[in-house]
Amino acid sequence: MDLYEYFEDFTARDWPQADEGTVRFAMVGLGWWTLDYAIPATNELEHLETTTVVSSTTEKARGVADEHDSIERALTYDEFTDGEATDAYDAVYVATPNALHLPYVEAAAEFGKDVLCEKPLEATTERAEKLVEAARDVTLGVEYRMHVQPAVRMMRELVADGFIGDVTLVHGNMSQRMLEINENPDQWRLNPDLAGAGASVTDLGVYSINTTRFVTGRDPVGVSGATWSEHEAFDDVPDERASFTVEFEDGVLASCTASQNAHYASSLRIVGTEGELLLEDAFLGGERELTVTRGDTTIQTEFDQIRETKRSIESFADHVLTDTPILGDGEHGLVDQRTIDAVYEAAASGERVDLSE
Amino acid sequence: MDLYEYFEDFTARDWPQADEGTVRFAMVGLGWWTLDYAIPATNELEHLETTTVVSSTTEKARGVADEHDSIERALTYDEFTDGEATDAYDAVYVATPNALHLPYVEAAAEFGKDVLCEKPLEATTERAEKLVEAARDVTLGVEYRMHVQPAVRMMRELVADGFIGDVTLVHGNMSQRMLEINENPDQWRLNPDLAGAGASVTDLGVYSINTTRFVTGRDPVGVSGATWSEHEAFDDVPDERASFTVEFEDGVLASCTASQNAHYASSLRIVGTEGELLLEDAFLGGERELTVTRGDTTIQTEFDQIRETKRSIESFADHVLTDTPILGDGEHGLVDQRTIDAVYEAAASGERVDLSE
Repeated sequence: MDLYEYFEDFTARDWPQADEGTVRFAMVGLGWWTLDYAIPATNELEHLETTTVVSSTTEKARGVADEHDSIERALTYDEFTDGEATDAYDAVYVATPNALHLPYVEAAAEFGKDVLCEKPLEATTERAEKLVEAARDVTLGVEYRMHVQPAVRMMRELVADGFIGDVTLVHGNMSQRMLEINENPDQWRLNPDLAGAGASVTDLGVYSINTTRFVTGRDPVGVSGATWSEHEAFDDVPDERASFTVEFEDGVLASCTASQNAHYASSLRIVGTEGELLLEDAFLGGERELTVTRGDTTIQTEFDQIRETKRSIESFADHVLTDTPILGDGEHGLVDQRTIDAVYEAAASGERVDLSE
Repeated sequence: MDLYEYFEDFTARDWPQADEGTVRFAMVGLGWWTLDYAIPATNELEHLETTTVVSSTTEKARGVADEHDSIERALTYDEFTDGEATDAYDAVYVATPNALHLPYVEAAAEFGKDVLCEKPLEATTERAEKLVEAARDVTLGVEYRMHVQPAVRMMRELVADGFIGDVTLVHGNMSQRMLEINENPDQWRLNPDLAGAGASVTDLGVYSINTTRFVTGRDPVGVSGATWSEHEAFDDVPDERASFTVEFEDGVLASCTASQNAHYASSLRIVGTEGELLLEDAFLGGERELTVTRGDTTIQTEFDQIRETKRSIESFADHVLTDTPILGDGEHGLVDQRTIDAVYEAAASGERVDLSE
């Protein structure tokens, strides 16, 4: 790769692009992520459109519908699962609390609609497996926005090229002050019935796990680690903080941390035999910067930042319209779900959990 | 702390300084570290001097003695333990392979000499405990050069000030290509009889463990993790690479990695509730740089790099001459030794090892 290529490729959309057709979305779950990121993204893109919104009450759904010309239908969850307005949309974005992904994916699949599901797939591996089984005849994508992040795609390419030699060690962290984003101590991310086994590994640790898989092309074979909670808002979950080792294929060892109650920070470091890749502000933050070291030479790359959710939804629609396979599909998502469950099991039992099968 | 103070304090020698007296050293073990770092350091400083060198043969010791005017005596290990030339030196620097620290510290203590011992203390906790017991009547310092590293001392001060809030998560890595430093596959660091249980956690992982203790003021309470070896040079040790979680007091969770067969790299990241400290080139490398973040503000500090071994030996001599306590003493070193042993035990058994007692 010469420097022209490096510059040109950095922010390229390097997946099959659709040149005709439109994907009309039903947005299921109208939290701040859907409202601030997902709906605006679809309405700014040529071949995407939000035509349907689904929420707990007609009133809430209609309130959102009234703000967007493209939205024709405002449904309750019950109306959605009953099959109302299925001719108004082609695909469904599911962004409800984790433990409510399954029923809406089941309904969508029953109506033959393609599904883009928020990560993690569900609250438990058992439910995630049901979800994937239910969606076997439609296109199912998991919303891994890091898969379209230019710096992460470049890291993946550099690793595949052998630019840093063999991958040896990985460090991943993601932390934020969730109670400053949402002050409500009863929010679903702190409720195991809705979020799954915990708050930090499920919601944040998954970024280190999945992005390491994506960048290195390797899957987890074992997990160990520890969790810790003290703040009263985290009374029902074990992981106000977590630190865990994920052993990947070929002896790649990843040291990961996650916290919903720490300084807003994230990073991903990949140490190879010949060099190192460091992405600062890896999973959050506006200004990602990639540092690439090989031998004694280091370059830092600042680049045109993209809106990841927008590009991720765009990529999903491209795959649907061009009928091409999605890397982050249901089977791919199940591997993360099993790894997340294993982290909680290992931390609770004090015993390594084998994932090699 | 205002910015004047920050600048002035950064590289300050903030321990008791000796204003009279000289410490005359016997250097036991003439490896490259002793020759390139320790002896030159003593001979450049006012109140230190290397007067005696000890090695496997008279010839080798004399060869080194001939290169330095200050060196009066050249001894074999046997002559040293037999008590020859004890009037030629006041203190002993022990830099033999780990499993040979005990006999020379025992001998030095018997002669009433103060001891600066390389880290880790010994090859096993049992032997390290014997070493500390043997040295109970002399001053024993463990050669933790990070304790005098200006950036690390500043990190410790910022943490103690609460500048990044409460410490939550830590990431530490240290890796190097040992076989490029020393091509001999029979070198002592790859021989469990001389190095202890392994090659990477013992020699490199100890930096993440000890520096986290030093910066956060907290000790380990539990350990879990994984090791991996494949390269034939690492046939006799489990840890060509290692990744491990160290649980510290107050729920501080550290994710650490170490490898003797990966790209030359090291870093220490401390995530608090209000900010983050990142030291790049933390444990190796010439140009350390400290990044301090609090809220949305970040500063990067480049500073006058010091020669750590020189300053560390200087600090030891200052403590000896002023008769003031050393933070990195035998009891301090034992905590690291127990933690290192626990990492190997946890990785081998797949079970968390409790260190809280």
